[in-house]
Amino acid sequence: MSVGIEHTYTLGEIVARLGGELLGDTQLQIDQVAALETARPRNISFFATTRLKRQLDATQAGAVILNQENREATQKPRIISNNPSAYFAKVAALLNPFEPAIAGIHPTAVIEPDAVIAASASIGPFVHIGRGARIGERVKIGAGCSIGDQVAIGEDTLLYPRVVIYQQCQLGARVILHSGAVIGADGFGLAHEEGRWLKIPQIGRVLIGDDVEIGANTTIDRGALEDTVIEEGVKLDNLIQVAHNVHIGAHSAMAGCVGIAGSARIGRNCTVGGAGMILGHLQIADNVSVSSGTLITKSITKPGAYTSAMPFSSHEQWLKNAAHLRHLDSMADKIRHLEQKIAELERKKS
Amino acid sequence: MSVGIEHTYTLGEIVARLGGELLGDTQLQIDQVAALETARPRNISFFATTRLKRQLDATQAGAVILNQENREATQKPRIISNNPSAYFAKVAALLNPFEPAIAGIHPTAVIEPDAVIAASASIGPFVHIGRGARIGERVKIGAGCSIGDQVAIGEDTLLYPRVVIYQQCQLGARVILHSGAVIGADGFGLAHEEGRWLKIPQIGRVLIGDDVEIGANTTIDRGALEDTVIEEGVKLDNLIQVAHNVHIGAHSAMAGCVGIAGSARIGRNCTVGGAGMILGHLQIADNVSVSSGTLITKSITKPGAYTSAMPFSSHEQWLKNAAHLRHLDSMADKIRHLEQKIAELERKKS
Amino acid sequence: MSVGIEHTYTLGEIVARLGGELLGDTQLQIDQVAALETARPRNISFFATTRLKRQLDATQAGAVILNQENREATQKPRIISNNPSAYFAKVAALLNPFEPAIAGIHPTAVIEPDAVIAASASIGPFVHIGRGARIGERVKIGAGCSIGDQVAIGEDTLLYPRVVIYQQCQLGARVILHSGAVIGADGFGLAHEEGRWLKIPQIGRVLIGDDVEIGANTTIDRGALEDTVIEEGVKLDNLIQVAHNVHIGAHSAMAGCVGIAGSARIGRNCTVGGAGMILGHLQIADNVSVSSGTLITKSITKPGAYTSAMPFSSHEQWLKNAAHLRHLDSMADKIRHLEQKIAELERKKS
Repeated sequence: MSVGIEHTYTLGEIVARLGGELLGDTQLQIDQVAALETARPRNISFFATTRLKRQLDATQAGAVILNQENREATQKPRIISNNPSAYFAKVAALLNPFEPAIAGIHPTAVIEPDAVIAASASIGPFVHIGRGARIGERVKIGAGCSIGDQVAIGEDTLLYPRVVIYQQCQLGARVILHSGAVIGADGFGLAHEEGRWLKIPQIGRVLIGDDVEIGANTTIDRGALEDTVIEEGVKLDNLIQVAHNVHIGAHSAMAGCVGIAGSARIGRNCTVGGAGMILGHLQIADNVSVSSGTLITKSITKPGAYTSAMPFSSHEQWLKNAAHLRHLDSMADKIRHLEQKIAELERKKS
Repeated sequence: MSVGIEHTYTLGEIVARLGGELLGDTQLQIDQVAALETARPRNISFFATTRLKRQLDATQAGAVILNQENREATQKPRIISNNPSAYFAKVAALLNPFEPAIAGIHPTAVIEPDAVIAASASIGPFVHIGRGARIGERVKIGAGCSIGDQVAIGEDTLLYPRVVIYQQCQLGARVILHSGAVIGADGFGLAHEEGRWLKIPQIGRVLIGDDVEIGANTTIDRGALEDTVIEEGVKLDNLIQVAHNVHIGAHSAMAGCVGIAGSARIGRNCTVGGAGMILGHLQIADNVSVSSGTLITKSITKPGAYTSAMPFSSHEQWLKNAAHLRHLDSMADKIRHLEQKIAELERKKS
Repeated sequence: MSVGIEHTYTLGEIVARLGGELLGDTQLQIDQVAALETARPRNISFFATTRLKRQLDATQAGAVILNQENREATQKPRIISNNPSAYFAKVAALLNPFEPAIAGIHPTAVIEPDAVIAASASIGPFVHIGRGARIGERVKIGAGCSIGDQVAIGEDTLLYPRVVIYQQCQLGARVILHSGAVIGADGFGLAHEEGRWLKIPQIGRVLIGDDVEIGANTTIDRGALEDTVIEEGVKLDNLIQVAHNVHIGAHSAMAGCVGIAGSARIGRNCTVGGAGMILGHLQIADNVSVSSGTLITKSITKPGAYTSAMPFSSHEQWLKNAAHLRHLDSMADKIRHLEQKIAELERKKS
C-alpha cells in the first residue's frame, strides 16, 4: 500500500467536510481507507452488501461507512450515508490527495514557439510541446509526453508520463490521461484502388470534455472529416481502442480491452464491460449496458443490458457442443421434418 | 477540423492533376474535403451510395465526386470518376499535404556511433538512434522515438512520437508508424522445464515493406529464428498484436484490436475486422475476409468471408439461450431419440 | 536473422556446459540455432515431433537435439536430451547472450534526489528516475523509461525503452519489461453518484516477482486498496490488461491480448490463450488452461482445459446458424412439444 505522506482526519472532521450522520467517537483519528478484511484500527472501511456481514463482524477497522438500512449492523464508530461507496471514494480522496505539482518547466523540456503555458503548470523532463499549444493553469505533464501543435489542455488536467497528443486536439479541465495513451492518431481511413489502399488524410480532431479519465495505452483516433468526441465525465480503462468519428456520451464508462469502431455513436450513461466491441456506424441509446466480451452488431434503441458471450465449459464438453453449433441449421431442419412427420401421424390417426 | 495551412485548388486544377471528367465551373475554388452533410460551399464531397441521395440533394458542398452511373444525380459542379472514394482520397491528400519535415537533427537527440542519417532526414527531440542504424532520405522521426542498433529505415518513412524499433529491424519506404507502436520486441517464445518457463532467445527480425501503415500502440514481435514479415502496402490499425514469425501478405488490412498468433501466414489482400483473432501456425489464403470478433481456429484455403460471432440479445433472452448452448449435445440426443421413436411409430403404422 | 556478434561453441563444449548425451563429432563448430528447414551446416536444430521426420531427413543442420526415443532418427552428430525444446532454449541462450550493459548513467538522464542506483546499473538516455527509487545491480534501463518515486527494481532486471513504472511499485530480480509496458497505473475504480463517476484513489501497488517477463504495451494496474501481485516466473505476452488487485500465481503464462478483470485470482502454472478474458473477482485453480478467445465467467476449481469459442464458418453458413442461435430457446420448446406429442401418440397406440 501507499507509502506517501500521511494525512489524518478525525471522524468529526470527515463528517464536517463530507456530510453524513456520525454515530460514535467524533475524535477517532482516521489515516487511511481499507477493505473490511485488512483494515487496521486507524482505517475506515465501508459495508455495502450484506454478503459481507461476516467480514463486518470481524473487521479491525476503527470506523465503517454504512447506509441507513444497516445503521445498526455494527456498533463501531460509523458514518451513515445513502451512498456508502461514493462516500468511501470521497474519504479516500481526502486521505490521498494528489500531490500538488511544482509549477514550472523542467530545464530539459522543449517548448516550440508560440506555445502558451500557464505559470502554475508543471512541465516534466523530456516533454515536447508543439507550436501554438495552450496549457492551462495547474496542468501537470509527466516525463516524456509529446504535445502536438495547437493542442489545447484545460486547467487541472493531469498527464502521466509518455502520453502523446497529436496536433490540434483539445482536452477539457480535470482530465486524467494515463501513461501510453495516444490521443489523435490518424483514423483507419482507406480507399481501395486497383488492389492497393490509398490513405485518406484524417483532418478531424479529438475533443475531450471535462473530468474524463483515460487509461494506460488506450488510443483515441482523430476524426476523418469531423471530430471524434468524448463528452464530459467519460471514464475509459486501459487498452481501449476508440476509432475515428466515434462519439461517446457524457458519463459513460468502459472497461479494459474494449473496441469502438468508426463513427459509432454511444449514448450517455452507458457502460461497456471488458473486451466488449461495438461495430462501426451504430447508434447506442443512453443507459445501455453492454456485457463483457459482447459484440454489438446492430444499433440499440432501448436502454437495458445486452449480451452475446458464448458460455464456457470444459474443453471436452465444448468439443461436443461446438460440433452441433456448426450444424444448427441442419438441427433446425430435423426438427421441422419431425414436426411434419408427427402432423402426418396425427392426421392418419384421426 | 484541421486548422492547418489552407491549400486551395480550382476544380480545373484538381482534374488536371488527378484526371476524371469535369462537369461545371472549372474556376470553382475548393479548399477542403467534407462529408455531404457538413460540407460548405468551398468544399468538395463525394457520393458513393444511392442511400445518401437525400444528403446529396441537401448538401452545401460546392462540388461533388460521383461515378458515371450517377453523373446526373446532381447538377452541381462535379467530377465523374469510376472510383469516387479513391478520387476523394486523392483530393484530400492534395488539400492536406504532409508538412515537409525540417531537415536536421534536434540538438537534444542522441545518435550513437556509426549511425548513418541522411542529410534530408528530420530527427526530433529526445530521439535515441542506436549504433549502425541507417536512416533514409526525408525520413521524419518524431519526439522520443527509440531506434535500435542496426535498424534500417527507408526513405520518406514517418515515425510519430514515441515509436520504438528494436535492434536490426528493417522498414521500407513511405512507411507510417503511429505513436506507441513497438516493432521487434521479443516473441513469446518459451520452453517448459520442471514447472518453469525458459526464455528462448528471439533472433529473427521484423521486416516491413514499402507503404505499410501501422497504428498507435500496435506491437509486432521479432521472429524466433526466422523473420516476421509485413509485406508492402499492409495497413494495420491500432492496438493490434502480431506475434513472432507471422507473415502478412501484401495489401492486407486489419482493423483495431486484432491478434495474429505466432507463425500464422496471412495471404495477400486479406482483411480482418476489429478484434478478429487468428490462431498460430495457420495458413490463410489470399482474398480472405475475416469478420469482426471472429476467431479463426483452422487454416482457410478458399477466398471468401468467414465469421464466428455469437449474436447478441437482451441479457434476459441471452440467459435463456445460453442455458441451451451449454446443452446442445443433449438437445441433439433428444432429436435423435425423437427420430427413432417416429420411425418406430411409422413402422408399426404400416 | 540476428547480425550480432557471433558466439561459437563445439558440440563437446555445449554438452560439457548443458549436459545431455553426445553422439558424433565433438569438435563440430556450432554458431547458431535454427529450424530444421532453414538450418545451415554450422547450426544446431531440434526434433520434437515425428510429424517433422521429413524435415529431419532433409535438414542441412550440422547437429540435432533429440529425445531418447528418437536417438536413431538421424545419423548426424546429435545431442540426446529428455527435453529437446528446453535444451534448445539453453543452447540458443548460450549462442545469443544478452549484451552486457555498460554500467553508468547517461548524461541526459534525470535522477531525482534520494534515488539509489547501483554502480553496475546502466541508465539510458532520457530516463527519468523519481525520488527515493532504488535500482539494483546490473539493472539496465532503456531510453526514455520513466521510473516513479520510491520504485524498487531488483538486480539484473532489464527494461527496454519507454517503459513506465508508477510510484512505489516493486520489481524482482531478472525481470524483463518490454517497450511500452505500463506498470502501476490507476485501477479502474469508480463509485457512482447522481449520474456521475467519482474516482476512488488507487493506493495499492504492483508487486512483480523474480524472473517475470512482460510484453510490449502490456498494462498492469496498481491495486485499489491492497496490491496487485504477479508472482515469480510469470510470463505475459504483449497488449495484456491486468486490472487492479489481480493476483497471478507463479509460472503462469498468458498470450497476447488477454484481459484479467479486477480482483481475479489466477492460480499457479495456469495458461491463458490469446484474447482469453477472465472476469472480475473469480478464482481460478492451479493448472488451469484457458483456450484462446475464451471468456471465463465463473470461478474454476478444477485443473483442466476450458473453452468457449464459437466455431467459425463461411459467412453464409454463419448467417443461417446465427439465426438459430437467437432462437435456441424456441428450438428447445419445439423439441419438448414434439416429445409430448410422441408420448401421446405412443399412449394412444398402446
